[in-house]
Amino acid sequence: MNFASDNVSPFCPEVLEALTQDASSNAPAYGGDNISQQLDAAFSELFDKEVAVVPVATGTAANCISLSALVSPYGGVVCHHESHINEDESTGVAFFTGGAKLLPMDGPAAKLEADKLDAFIADRVDRGVHSVAPECVAITQATELGAVYTVDEVKMIGDVCRTHDLRLFMDGARFANAVAHLKCHPADVTWKAGVDAISFGATKNGAMAVDAIVLFDTNLRHRVEQARKRSGHLHSKHRYLATQLLAYIKNDVWLKNADNANTAAKTLANILSKQGASLTHPAQGNELFVRMPVELAGRLRDAGMMFHGWPSLGADVYRFVTAWNTDIDQINQLESGL
Amino acid sequence: MNFASDNVSPFCPEVLEALTQDASSNAPAYGGDNISQQLDAAFSELFDKEVAVVPVATGTAANCISLSALVSPYGGVVCHHESHINEDESTGVAFFTGGAKLLPMDGPAAKLEADKLDAFIADRVDRGVHSVAPECVAITQATELGAVYTVDEVKMIGDVCRTHDLRLFMDGARFANAVAHLKCHPADVTWKAGVDAISFGATKNGAMAVDAIVLFDTNLRHRVEQARKRSGHLHSKHRYLATQLLAYIKNDVWLKNADNANTAAKTLANILSKQGASLTHPAQGNELFVRMPVELAGRLRDAGMMFHGWPSLGADVYRFVTAWNTDIDQINQLESGL
Amino acid sequence: MNFASDNVSPFCPEVLEALTQDASSNAPAYGGDNISQQLDAAFSELFDKEVAVVPVATGTAANCISLSALVSPYGGVVCHHESHINEDESTGVAFFTGGAKLLPMDGPAAKLEADKLDAFIADRVDRGVHSVAPECVAITQATELGAVYTVDEVKMIGDVCRTHDLRLFMDGARFANAVAHLKCHPADVTWKAGVDAISFGATKNGAMAVDAIVLFDTNLRHRVEQARKRSGHLHSKHRYLATQLLAYIKNDVWLKNADNANTAAKTLANILSKQGASLTHPAQGNELFVRMPVELAGRLRDAGMMFHGWPSLGADVYRFVTAWNTDIDQINQLESGL
Amino acid sequence: MNFASDNVSPFCPEVLEALTQDASSNAPAYGGDNISQQLDAAFSELFDKEVAVVPVATGTAANCISLSALVSPYGGVVCHHESHINEDESTGVAFFTGGAKLLPMDGPAAKLEADKLDAFIADRVDRGVHSVAPECVAITQATELGAVYTVDEVKMIGDVCRTHDLRLFMDGARFANAVAHLKCHPADVTWKAGVDAISFGATKNGAMAVDAIVLFDTNLRHRVEQARKRSGHLHSKHRYLATQLLAYIKNDVWLKNADNANTAAKTLANILSKQGASLTHPAQGNELFVRMPVELAGRLRDAGMMFHGWPSLGADVYRFVTAWNTDIDQINQLESGL
Repeated sequence: MNFASDNVSPFCPEVLEALTQDASSNAPAYGGDNISQQLDAAFSELFDKEVAVVPVATGTAANCISLSALVSPYGGVVCHHESHINEDESTGVAFFTGGAKLLPMDGPAAKLEADKLDAFIADRVDRGVHSVAPECVAITQATELGAVYTVDEVKMIGDVCRTHDLRLFMDGARFANAVAHLKCHPADVTWKAGVDAISFGATKNGAMAVDAIVLFDTNLRHRVEQARKRSGHLHSKHRYLATQLLAYIKNDVWLKNADNANTAAKTLANILSKQGASLTHPAQGNELFVRMPVELAGRLRDAGMMFHGWPSLGADVYRFVTAWNTDIDQINQLESGL
Repeated sequence: MNFASDNVSPFCPEVLEALTQDASSNAPAYGGDNISQQLDAAFSELFDKEVAVVPVATGTAANCISLSALVSPYGGVVCHHESHINEDESTGVAFFTGGAKLLPMDGPAAKLEADKLDAFIADRVDRGVHSVAPECVAITQATELGAVYTVDEVKMIGDVCRTHDLRLFMDGARFANAVAHLKCHPADVTWKAGVDAISFGATKNGAMAVDAIVLFDTNLRHRVEQARKRSGHLHSKHRYLATQLLAYIKNDVWLKNADNANTAAKTLANILSKQGASLTHPAQGNELFVRMPVELAGRLRDAGMMFHGWPSLGADVYRFVTAWNTDIDQINQLESGL
Repeated sequence: MNFASDNVSPFCPEVLEALTQDASSNAPAYGGDNISQQLDAAFSELFDKEVAVVPVATGTAANCISLSALVSPYGGVVCHHESHINEDESTGVAFFTGGAKLLPMDGPAAKLEADKLDAFIADRVDRGVHSVAPECVAITQATELGAVYTVDEVKMIGDVCRTHDLRLFMDGARFANAVAHLKCHPADVTWKAGVDAISFGATKNGAMAVDAIVLFDTNLRHRVEQARKRSGHLHSKHRYLATQLLAYIKNDVWLKNADNANTAAKTLANILSKQGASLTHPAQGNELFVRMPVELAGRLRDAGMMFHGWPSLGADVYRFVTAWNTDIDQINQLESGL
Repeated sequence: MNFASDNVSPFCPEVLEALTQDASSNAPAYGGDNISQQLDAAFSELFDKEVAVVPVATGTAANCISLSALVSPYGGVVCHHESHINEDESTGVAFFTGGAKLLPMDGPAAKLEADKLDAFIADRVDRGVHSVAPECVAITQATELGAVYTVDEVKMIGDVCRTHDLRLFMDGARFANAVAHLKCHPADVTWKAGVDAISFGATKNGAMAVDAIVLFDTNLRHRVEQARKRSGHLHSKHRYLATQLLAYIKNDVWLKNADNANTAAKTLANILSKQGASLTHPAQGNELFVRMPVELAGRLRDAGMMFHGWPSLGADVYRFVTAWNTDIDQINQLESGL
C-alpha cells in the first residue's frame, strides 16, 4: 500500500462525475460562467460568512498569492520551521510578495504556540527600516507533522495577531482533515478565531487540481485576483476549477473523504504500535510520524508498504500518509502479513 | 453560436476518456509517475528531435516561465504590440523574468517581419548598462490576429536572431491551428527554423487546462523546472497534466481538432463575406477579424451569433473565433437565417 | 569646451565649503543628525508647503524609489518615449516597483500634451486583470530634450491625472533649469499643479551626488524610506547628503547655477545659429538640440567643442549641454575661432 | 565620547583633500574619467591579483549587488544569524537577487565555523526544486560582533565551499580592521583563501560614502555593473567615488585609520575591564561587546560615554565602537573621571 503521500491518490468519483457533466457545452471563459459564479455563495454558506473565493490549481499558488495580499515587500511572515511555505515552496514567498521574509520559529509537532509567538514577536528588536518587521503570521491546519490546532489554540494565536496588528493566514492544504478531526464548524477555526484568509485545500483530498483561496476579508479580492492573473494562475476554462470545488464541498464530500483518511491513519497507527513503533505525537489528521527500528521498517516494506523516512525528526522516524481512497480493510489485512 | 473565443469550448472526448481511465489508481506525485515519464519521448517523436517537456496549466504560465529562462532581468524581449505577452498577461513577463522589458514593434496581422525586425534591433542605440538590450524575440504562431507565419517567414526571423545572438521564443497557444493550416511538419516551423522554446498550446484546442513548454534547447530544463515550482505551477498530481497532453497529441487529435476549427472559420468567413463583411486579412487559423457595418453586426447577433468588437483594429472591426467543437453544419444553417 | 553633458561638471564651491565644514565632527548616523533634521523644514519653506524629503545619491534612485510608492506591481506608468525612466534606467522601474510597466507615448520635445494624454488613457481598452491599467503619469521638467513645461501645461496634465485618478510624478533632474527659465515659484509647477512627488535634482547642477525625493503627499514617506533602505540608498553618513542639499538651496545657489547654465545655452545657441545650425526646438533650459551639416559639426569639434550626436532625432542632430560652471566668456571667445 | 558606531565619524583629511583637488575641472561621467580608470589597477596591486572594482556608495548596496551576481533567484545564501545581510538590510538580499533566501546558522562571535558549515550544508535535505539549495556562503570580516577570522579559518571555509561547489562572499565593511589586526596581506584572507568577491568597506573607516565591490572572479563584472545601474547605484559623477577610494588606499591610509580604531578599542577594553566589565569575546577589531552591571553602565554614561545596549547578547551586554578618528588620549583621560 502506498503511504508515501496523499498526493499519490487520484481524484474522487464525485469530481469525475462533475467534470464529465460539464464536458460538452460552451461557457464563458475566465470565471464568467454559471458554475464559477456559484463559488462565493457556496463557500459563504460553508463558512457562515460572506467570503470571496479565488480558486487556483496548486497549494503553493494558493499560499503564495494569499501572502502577496497580506504582507508588503518589506515585511516578515512568522511561520514554523517545518511549514510548507518555509520548506517546500522554493523561494516562492519572496517571489510573490516582492521580497517578504519568512521568520521561522519552533513549536511541537509543527504548531506555533500563542505564548511563544507573542514572545517571539515582542522580542524582535525593531530597528526601523533596517530590520524586517512581522506583518503576518502563517499557520498550517492540520500541520505538516499531522497535528491539529484546537479551536482555542487558533483563537489565542488570533489574539496575538490582533495585539500586534498582524494578519493571520492559514495554510489549509489539509483543512478537511483538521475539521473532520475537530468535528467543529469550519468558521470556528478560521474567521471566528481571527483568520484573514485560508488556502482551502482540495487537491490532496479528492480533487484533481484545485485549492481555493478563501478570503474572509473580502477587500483583499482585487489584489488577489491581480496577483493570480499576473502569475499565470487564472485559468481560461475557469469553470473546471469551480466544478471540482463545488463537487468537493457538496454533500460534505470533503469531510467524508477526510474521515476516511483520518480513520485509516488511526487504524494504521494501532497496527504499527502493536509492532513496537511509537508515534512522535498522537495521530490526529491523516499523517503519522513514527519512530521504529530499521528492522521493523524493513519488515513493513517487505509487506508491501511504501513510506518515506523523515530525517528532520530523526534517523529512525518515518512518515505514513493516508488519503481519501485508502482502503481500511486492506490495512487490516496487512497486519496479518507482518 | 458562440464565437467569442476558443476558450468557451469544453474539453474534448479523448481528453475526458484519458482522465477517466486514470481516475482510480495511485501513482507517484510531481511527475514521477509512468504517464508523466512518457512526455519527453512522445514530444521528441512529434518534433523529430530530443526535447524537454514541462507542462503547466495555462498559456500565460507557459509563456512567462519560458521567457524567464531565455532572458535576463536586464534584457529586452522584442515582440509585436498586439502580442498576448504584451497585451494580455498583466505585468507577468516582468514578474517572472525579474524585470525584463517588452520591446514592442508593429507588423501586419500581428506578425513580425524579418527585415523590419532586423532594422528594429540594429537601430536601437546601445548605451551599455543604461539601455535595455534585446536578448530574445517572441513571435506568436498563429498570431493574435489569426495570421500564420510561413515556414520561410519563421526561418528568416530565426536568421535575424542568430545574427544578433538573440533567443527565439514561440507562443504557440494556437500552434495546432497554424500547423493544420501550413500542413507542414511541426519541426519545420520550430527548431529547424531557429526556435529555442515553444509554449505548445492545448487548452484552447481540446484540453481542459494544459499547455506544454517544449524546450528544443534541453539545457533550459532545469531553470524552467525551478521557475515552474517557485511560481506554483508544478502540480502534485502531475499525471493529469500529462494525461491530457498525451491524449491530445495521440492519433493526431490536436490536428483533427484544429482542422475543424480552421474549416469552421473558413466556412464562416464565406458566409460573412456574402453578407458584405470584409476580412482585414485572409482567414488562416481559427480567428476571423472582419470589417462590417454596425447594421450587419446587429443582424448577426439577432441571428444568435456571439462575438466581440476589436477596437484596436477599428470601431467597425469584430473578432470571430471558432474552436475544435464548432459545428460546421450549424454555421451553414445560420446562413439561411440571415 | 565640454558640452557632452552637465554630468561632466564638478561640484560647486558652496557644496565644497559645506562638506569641508562638516568634515571634522562626529554626528548620529542614518539621518539622526542635526543637519539632516533640517531638510524637511528647508524644503517646506522652499515649496511653501509641508513636504517630506528623502535624499538619495542618484537620479535613477530618486525616480525609481518614488515610483515604487506611487504605482502597484500590476500598474502602468504613462511617460514619454524619450523619458529617462524609459530610455536610461535599464529595467529599474520594473525592478523597484515589482513589475510595473512603462506605457510610453509621444509628444513634441519630449513633452506630454494634456489632451493627447487624456486620449491615450481614455482609449486604452480595460480588460480587467488581463491588461495593465495606468496608475501614474511621469513627466520630466525640464524634459530630456531641453524643453520646459509652462505652469499651465503642468496644471492641465495634473487635471487629466485627477480626472482619471492617477498619480503625477515629476522627474526634476533639471528642475532648477526649468524654474530658472520660467521664473515662477517652485510651488507653481509642482504641488499646486497636481504633482504628488518630485525627484529634485542637484547632482547635474552643482552637487557632488545627491537628488532629493520631495513628497508633497507626506503619507508616502514611510513607504519611500522602506524602499530607500532596502535598495541600499540609505547612507550611514546621511548628513553629507543633507549638507549638499542645504548648501544647494541656500541663498538660491540652485537658481544661480541654473541661470548660468541656461544663459550659456542661449549664448551658444546664438553662435551656432549664426554658423548655420538650427535648433530642433527653442532653447529653454541648458540643453540644445541642433541640426547642422556634418561639415559644421566637424569644424566645431576642430575648434575644441565636445558634444554628442543624437540619432533619435536624426542623423544630423547633435546635443549640446551647458552646466553651472560653463564659462560664458569662453563660449564667446570660441566664436572668433570658428 | 561617542562609541555608538563608527558611522558617527566624519570622513578623513586625506579624502577631503582628494575631493577638494578634484572639485574644479570637468571630466567624463559614469566612470569614463581618468580617476575612475585607475581603480582596477590600484586594487589589483593591493590584492596582488587582477581584480574588477565596482564602487557604490553604501555597504548594503555593495553586499546585495555582489550577491545578485553570485546566487540565482532560486538559491540560498548561508550566513550567520547576526550578519548584516540577515539583520540590517531589510529584505534587500531577496530584492536584489530576485528571491534568494538567507539560510542563517549560529557560531561564536558571529563567525561561521568550517566544520559546522560543512555539516549544515551536508545535512540539508535536498528535495529538488521544492527546497532551496545553498549556492553561496557569506561571511563578514571582521564580524558584526567584532571578531576576526584568521587566515586559516577563512581557508577552511573556502575549502568547504569548493567541496560543495558554492560561491564565497565576504562582507568587508570592516575589512580594514580585520587586516590591521591580522597583519596579513589582503590576498591571504580573500582570494587566496577562496573568496570570490568582497565588499571592501571604506565608509566606516574614513570615507564619506563609498564601498568597493572587488571581484576576484572578473567574469562577474558585467552582471555586477548591470545590477548597479539598474538599482540606481551608478553615479554620474563617478569620479568622486573613485577619488575617495584611491585616497583611502593610498599610503595605507586605510590601515592607518583601522589601526587607530583597533588600538582605541583595546585601550577602552582595558579601562572597562578594570572597572569590572568583561568582554564577551576578545577585542580584535574596533568593536567591543562587554557585559557589565547596570550601575557601571550608568556611571560610564555619566562620564560622557555614548554606547548602545546589545540585547541579542543579553540584557547586560553593551556595544562600544571606535573609529579612525577616536582620540586615544581622550579615552585615557576618561579613566580618571570614572
